[in-house]
Amino acid sequence: MTEDQLLVLMIKYLKDSKRGALQQMLDELHPYDVAQLYRSLPDKHHHKFLTFLTPDQIADLIQELDSDMQIEILHRLGIERSSKVMNLMDNDDLADLLNELSVERIQEFLDAMKDDESEKVQSLMGYDPETAGGLMTNQFIWIKEDYTVRQAVDKLKDYASFSENIYYLYVINEEKKLVGVVSYRDLLIAHIDDKIKDIMFNRVVSVPVDMDQEEVARTIERYDFIAIPVVDQQNTLLGIITVDDVIDVVIREANEDIEKLSASGKDIDFQTKALTASARRLPWLVLLLFIGLVSGSIISNFEETLEQVVALIFFMPMIAGMTGNTGTQSLAVVVRGIVTQNLDRKTIIHLVFRELRVGILIGLTCGVLIFVIGTIWINITLGFVVGVSLLLTLITGTLAGTIIPLFLYRMGVDPAVASGPLITTLNDIFSLMIYFGIATAFLTQLQGL
Amino acid sequence: MTEDQLLVLMIKYLKDSKRGALQQMLDELHPYDVAQLYRSLPDKHHHKFLTFLTPDQIADLIQELDSDMQIEILHRLGIERSSKVMNLMDNDDLADLLNELSVERIQEFLDAMKDDESEKVQSLMGYDPETAGGLMTNQFIWIKEDYTVRQAVDKLKDYASFSENIYYLYVINEEKKLVGVVSYRDLLIAHIDDKIKDIMFNRVVSVPVDMDQEEVARTIERYDFIAIPVVDQQNTLLGIITVDDVIDVVIREANEDIEKLSASGKDIDFQTKALTASARRLPWLVLLLFIGLVSGSIISNFEETLEQVVALIFFMPMIAGMTGNTGTQSLAVVVRGIVTQNLDRKTIIHLVFRELRVGILIGLTCGVLIFVIGTIWINITLGFVVGVSLLLTLITGTLAGTIIPLFLYRMGVDPAVASGPLITTLNDIFSLMIYFGIATAFLTQLQGL
Repeated sequence: MTEDQLLVLMIKYLKDSKRGALQQMLDELHPYDVAQLYRSLPDKHHHKFLTFLTPDQIADLIQELDSDMQIEILHRLGIERSSKVMNLMDNDDLADLLNELSVERIQEFLDAMKDDESEKVQSLMGYDPETAGGLMTNQFIWIKEDYTVRQAVDKLKDYASFSENIYYLYVINEEKKLVGVVSYRDLLIAHIDDKIKDIMFNRVVSVPVDMDQEEVARTIERYDFIAIPVVDQQNTLLGIITVDDVIDVVIREANEDIEKLSASGKDIDFQTKALTASARRLPWLVLLLFIGLVSGSIISNFEETLEQVVALIFFMPMIAGMTGNTGTQSLAVVVRGIVTQNLDRKTIIHLVFRELRVGILIGLTCGVLIFVIGTIWINITLGFVVGVSLLLTLITGTLAGTIIPLFLYRMGVDPAVASGPLITTLNDIFSLMIYFGIATAFLTQLQGL
Repeated sequence: MTEDQLLVLMIKYLKDSKRGALQQMLDELHPYDVAQLYRSLPDKHHHKFLTFLTPDQIADLIQELDSDMQIEILHRLGIERSSKVMNLMDNDDLADLLNELSVERIQEFLDAMKDDESEKVQSLMGYDPETAGGLMTNQFIWIKEDYTVRQAVDKLKDYASFSENIYYLYVINEEKKLVGVVSYRDLLIAHIDDKIKDIMFNRVVSVPVDMDQEEVARTIERYDFIAIPVVDQQNTLLGIITVDDVIDVVIREANEDIEKLSASGKDIDFQTKALTASARRLPWLVLLLFIGLVSGSIISNFEETLEQVVALIFFMPMIAGMTGNTGTQSLAVVVRGIVTQNLDRKTIIHLVFRELRVGILIGLTCGVLIFVIGTIWINITLGFVVGVSLLLTLITGTLAGTIIPLFLYRMGVDPAVASGPLITTLNDIFSLMIYFGIATAFLTQLQGL
């Protein structure tokens, strides 16, 4: 059945109040699919649909929706039913959801929840959302090293409700320190009376609770893990991070890089309202407008040169544009390189010299090309001035696109804020100064035009 | 121990030929860590190190290295030992590795391998690397629906060597069609005599073998799976794709988007040689150089206007730059939106009108701002000309940054090739035509300067 057919059937069941048939249909669907149906379902059916679901099903559904729809559902459910659903949600998702609400609402919900669940969620809400602590869930299963396989499996059965998305069990010692890990597969192929400490893997890779989420993602990606334990400074196990959260981080970070590189403002997607999108884009544009005027004031300083050799203007957009383009290219290499590489002193020096050579090679090629074009179009003197200028501006532009983001990175600033438009606008200024500087030096020869 | 301490110890063991001690050290390390050590190990020790490893360990190590180092290891090992290692490697990694070699070398290695392994690898090499077939491994464990849990676990034990990175078992019927899935957790909490068909989940989400890898990544990400089965048109199970490969795809695709958006050329990282990097960047730059000259020829058409009102030039870089910037912003929204959204007619129309409104809002704000600045700096007529021009060019630029990539996408071309620099350069041309067009219309008034 296609999604449309499912939707039609679902509306029919709702209208006829066939709860059993609806339940049977939902049983065969993944939470993601149920959420897709819920989004397509007309508003007027939402309330009835929610009354037909068990708290468990609502918990699954709510985790797939974005925060606006989550909050809408909580309002429809009322405090009492909401708190039942919240008891069943993954703690990390719940903490994110609560963080969207007002302080009074948060307190209201937390009070209605079970004490131990409420405490667990509150402890998660204290972590910076961009760190390991903000990503982790504290619903996980730990076992002791002196357990047998049988005891471990029994514990797993007791906690079956939240073991679904877990694939490793973490082992702790008497002092609650993390000492090992066993996978479900290890348990399956071991003998039922084997001791956990004999089958576990001792060298557990873990991440500290304050590690940046990008670093967490990199660690999981490098080791091909599907989960990683989070520990405090004393190596006490605090929670786990699963790979599905990491994929979300990777996508979000890539989007953020692109947003910054294009100075397009945070979180603009196809649904964002025009007014909101404009408000997010304008600060950058206004800044760039003022920097753009600096280019204008540079030109006004060379007014005399320009009035005498108007043909100089013909090459101005090309020179400024090319300098910006090569800068953007270098910037992209640096910004994405940082995602996968460690930036030590040696790497930086190597990279800057590589880009210097790239700038010279690109500059020579384009410089000779434009010398020929300029000579044919206007005359050999102008061809020479434009060619030499392009050689120098391309070297400058390439280095600026490399050194500015590297410098920002070393200063602890995200280098992607040295966005394409910013580098482009700065390179406009550099290139105009070089171009008109050289042209003014050759003014007497150029006037022979 | 830090990596440096491990490395020093490792070199000591190699010099003293202490194979046992080295083995003990490696036992406690993850393949990724071993690969890191191998990369830092001076070249002269590589040969001895490899002779100290078992084929199993080399297979783990080789999967963590990039293709240059993989091929180097194969050369050092020679055909016979290489083929042993290849028999132990994951088939999808091996197929990727072999695809890097010459046809004769491939044949040589395949001949030396076990027949069934060789066949499996060859069948993988036939798929387009950017599709589900190119991502999947055909080393996986299937079980039949009439198995008991005990039989399933026994099969798992028999194939323990490659069940390590697998977390679900896929269930097939008599005709080898995919009919269900059970997780290791399901097996652990079930009774040993339960029938698989009673505990399995029937509605398996699978992907067709020719599905694009980006689509595969999106599916796994949406459902929070850690593996997904790959089937042919008859629903016969062909292989599985695991989440670690999907993370690599997500990172690679994001990098490709950024490469294209910045027109920076394919596969340039910190290690790329300057000559190679220049060669990859130049084609775009030369193209943009010629487009940039078009701007120049437009200006030359307005030479007369310019000679009479030189002050017009002061605002030229700002207007061209701003038009490019807003275009880049819109482009970024479109390119990343495509990653997560389906582009139907309705979405496209909605988006274009949204961006039109954004263009107008941005245009009005910046237009009024520059009118005030222009009036103060030069005079009210020029302020008016520049303000109106900026309003119109910002609307044009915003729409160009939206419509061009959408059009390319509908034509089946990757919209990211409408790179930032290309949009910027095209917007240069649009903006100059608008600006000088308006200025020429107001020439008489402007000459009152």
